Amino acid sequence: MPSLFREIRNNPLLWLLVFVPVVFATAKLKPDAHALLFLLSVLAIVPLAALLSHATESVASKTSDAVGGLLNATLGNLTELVISLAALRAGQYVLVKASVAGAIVTNTLFVLGASFFFGGLKHHVQEYNRVSARVQAGLLFLASVALLIPSAISHVDSKTSVAFTQKLSFGLAVLLIVAYGLGMLFSLKTHRELFASADHGETNETPWPIGSALATLAGVTVLVALVSEVFVESVQQAAAAFGMTPAFVGFIVVALVGGAAEMTSAFSGARKDRLDLSVGIALGSASQIALFVAPVLVLVSYVFGPSPMDLQFWPGAVVMVLIATLTASLVTNSGRSAWFLGVLLLMVYLIFCMTLYLLPPREQ
Amino acid sequence: MPSLFREIRNNPLLWLLVFVPVVFATAKLKPDAHALLFLLSVLAIVPLAALLSHATESVASKTSDAVGGLLNATLGNLTELVISLAALRAGQYVLVKASVAGAIVTNTLFVLGASFFFGGLKHHVQEYNRVSARVQAGLLFLASVALLIPSAISHVDSKTSVAFTQKLSFGLAVLLIVAYGLGMLFSLKTHRELFASADHGETNETPWPIGSALATLAGVTVLVALVSEVFVESVQQAAAAFGMTPAFVGFIVVALVGGAAEMTSAFSGARKDRLDLSVGIALGSASQIALFVAPVLVLVSYVFGPSPMDLQFWPGAVVMVLIATLTASLVTNSGRSAWFLGVLLLMVYLIFCMTLYLLPPREQ
Amino acid sequence: MPSLFREIRNNPLLWLLVFVPVVFATAKLKPDAHALLFLLSVLAIVPLAALLSHATESVASKTSDAVGGLLNATLGNLTELVISLAALRAGQYVLVKASVAGAIVTNTLFVLGASFFFGGLKHHVQEYNRVSARVQAGLLFLASVALLIPSAISHVDSKTSVAFTQKLSFGLAVLLIVAYGLGMLFSLKTHRELFASADHGETNETPWPIGSALATLAGVTVLVALVSEVFVESVQQAAAAFGMTPAFVGFIVVALVGGAAEMTSAFSGARKDRLDLSVGIALGSASQIALFVAPVLVLVSYVFGPSPMDLQFWPGAVVMVLIATLTASLVTNSGRSAWFLGVLLLMVYLIFCMTLYLLPPREQ
Repeated sequence: MPSLFREIRNNPLLWLLVFVPVVFATAKLKPDAHALLFLLSVLAIVPLAALLSHATESVASKTSDAVGGLLNATLGNLTELVISLAALRAGQYVLVKASVAGAIVTNTLFVLGASFFFGGLKHHVQEYNRVSARVQAGLLFLASVALLIPSAISHVDSKTSVAFTQKLSFGLAVLLIVAYGLGMLFSLKTHRELFASADHGETNETPWPIGSALATLAGVTVLVALVSEVFVESVQQAAAAFGMTPAFVGFIVVALVGGAAEMTSAFSGARKDRLDLSVGIALGSASQIALFVAPVLVLVSYVFGPSPMDLQFWPGAVVMVLIATLTASLVTNSGRSAWFLGVLLLMVYLIFCMTLYLLPPREQ
Repeated sequence: MPSLFREIRNNPLLWLLVFVPVVFATAKLKPDAHALLFLLSVLAIVPLAALLSHATESVASKTSDAVGGLLNATLGNLTELVISLAALRAGQYVLVKASVAGAIVTNTLFVLGASFFFGGLKHHVQEYNRVSARVQAGLLFLASVALLIPSAISHVDSKTSVAFTQKLSFGLAVLLIVAYGLGMLFSLKTHRELFASADHGETNETPWPIGSALATLAGVTVLVALVSEVFVESVQQAAAAFGMTPAFVGFIVVALVGGAAEMTSAFSGARKDRLDLSVGIALGSASQIALFVAPVLVLVSYVFGPSPMDLQFWPGAVVMVLIATLTASLVTNSGRSAWFLGVLLLMVYLIFCMTLYLLPPREQ
Repeated sequence: MPSLFREIRNNPLLWLLVFVPVVFATAKLKPDAHALLFLLSVLAIVPLAALLSHATESVASKTSDAVGGLLNATLGNLTELVISLAALRAGQYVLVKASVAGAIVTNTLFVLGASFFFGGLKHHVQEYNRVSARVQAGLLFLASVALLIPSAISHVDSKTSVAFTQKLSFGLAVLLIVAYGLGMLFSLKTHRELFASADHGETNETPWPIGSALATLAGVTVLVALVSEVFVESVQQAAAAFGMTPAFVGFIVVALVGGAAEMTSAFSGARKDRLDLSVGIALGSASQIALFVAPVLVLVSYVFGPSPMDLQFWPGAVVMVLIATLTASLVTNSGRSAWFLGVLLLMVYLIFCMTLYLLPPREQ
């Protein structure tokens, strides 16, 4: 795999790969150094996520357009999914749900906001395809609302029970996955022209040969899974040591770590005045979490989890996700942006971070 | 009335009229067969609603434009109103309020969603007059918000009392009816050109002579009222027999039964690529429920009801109506639709149905 | 200051200035006539606010554009700020917070609604710069959301504490002021062309000489501060005498009194078909309250108040502010208005007034 090594030499982010063996060694030698293990596993996941993202795109570019699109759409949040699966197996459902809600918020507020901000520093006013942005923001809003209905209803209604929430969550997960399948039919087949401008294919990286790409995809997924286990085991104690609540870790840290690779693409797109790419990554990634990652986790919990997981989110998370997706709808509505719009989106994100950081820890 | 009989021969939906005498006979002979009476009364109301809708349009087309518009606007939800009045007289306020909230949700999610879906199966992308859709969605949003304010405030504020809610509901009902009157002045007189494209007049049915139409209007209204009484009496026990909560019956069943006639027009409009008609029916009908039907029911309850009815909705209904109208605003904003947008609206509707079906029954 | 006296002769509103000495005399002679003192202080603040507004504009027009814009932006809500500071010093935090929330609601519903209504009575359909309106509505939505996050989170989450809310409010106040500073950089420096049409400079009043203007600014601010003290002292008892809740006084009365001068400009702009001016005043003023007045009051409370003030609003106020700003976003989205849109905005405002008037009084 000479292509892999060339890639590593050229991309300073990938030098962090050195932390992958360090994590495993430390986990073996000092299994109780939770804060250290937490930091090392974060540092190891970031470059692995970048490799995973590049490998997915390489495989996608070698296959037919439809299969490639399918791959990109399904594996785009693979890192997120693998980390959440590790937390699911460990029965840490609070962390799993926080990371799902956090990934939606991070994509719509932080990725979109920072793209507008960095793009706006270089370009006075940036325009993007508002028809496509509106369609994507509409999908995201509906997907998030669907995801949040059980929580909203049982928050306002004291008569709901655990059995009710669990049945509703299961039915909901099935509906969301059906909608996701139909959404791929829509965006990859019947109405692909609407999503054309958000094509990832035109990145300046050269795709790898299919053999290296497939091998990297398989190998790196296994590595992410292994590092994720260390991460999930250490995160609770590490959070306590750093004074962070589990909600903060799930919402902010996991979402930022899991999405680091995609963020780099979104920001560099914005700097090059290709805001369509950035908006597409931010909104598409958030929709995918709501329509695919979240229901898959619910269904998988029936097989691998210690008990079935429901889609009952912490009420504060419901408020944050609703505000974030509503904001994304209103903000992308005009099809233009300037740096201050980015500042405001980032400000709301910062306020969420501050709230979660200050919030007294909870059991639920 | 030869026109009435010709109509019945040509329209298979009207063959269901045979169930009208069957309902009355069954109610006489087997007054305790609640599940059967419920089914029969639903089957009888659907064709009566279709007749009522056609009779209204026939009378409207024979009178001056202004009077005709007024008639269409006032009697467009006559079936809904008559069913709700029967429930009101029986003191079933939970059912009345559920049917009001359910009619708004059904129109904005189901009628709009199914129109987008059926239209989108035949046409790649459909465009409609987005200026008019935005005005209508804006009216609907404001009307719904007004309707929900007492519930929202007393949900978040524990200090409210029954007396407070009742006084507020009465004042609100008066304000809503004044707004409705001004809204008709607006849409029929000062700014009628904004609403022109949603004209019902161009349906392919031929209008009846004014005599037949007026007689049908009067006679069918009486029949709907009589059948509604059977429906309202049987619905509680029938719901229990079918495992449905009263909330589900009011929200979903009554709204679908009462609006069946208009839905047919909306869907056939969408198939003919006349989405303006469909959007006009869906949003206009929902606005009319909020601005006219709901306040009329409150005011009438002071005269005919066992006690004054307030506008205090079940909190879950508040969430659903807010989500539905906000969604309608965001979705109609672009003036274009494709089949997947319909799928998403229907998915949110299905999730609401599922939630209401699973929800443990309540007294309130 | 001959210009001041000429102004007073020409502007009947300013004849109310006679109430300024009357207030002080009455406060001295009959310190317990609370209802009378309340009425007199309201009558005295209105003309003082008008003078303050004219003086600010005169100073602004004599300085460089950047300094002038800064002055207009900072002192535009000076009356509001001075009244709130008086209430703050008296420890009346409920009144302070109600007036902040009320000023946002009053600007977005009443000022916008009445502008649409009065403009629409004279002009069939009015168009305005929707790009600029959308940017401003977006800023307002984000600013309001930021302001409300502590309240929303602690409303839905029972685990929050006073210490949590206070720390969060302080951090939030700092963030909001930073955002406000960046917003001025944006609207006055880097992207001033977006806000050009909402320029106040083209009013038909002639600016005063700089000397008179500065003296008026200083003198009138002192007078407003003194009258505000009488107002704040008398308002609680007067409210009880008139059957008004403190929430109603803060939300409705203080906001209407403090904003009377700007409202006159907004309404006359609408009549002259310069709706950009009206929309700019309404949305700009509301944003300024959220981004500048509210955080300044929090920070000042650490120095002058009896105890630190937090940004924990009454839940009903949160609902009202969210509805108001969301409505403003949806309504200004189309860039056109007609009289009925104004009616609907005013109706929602009236419903809020009715709710607050009927609501049983609270301590919190």
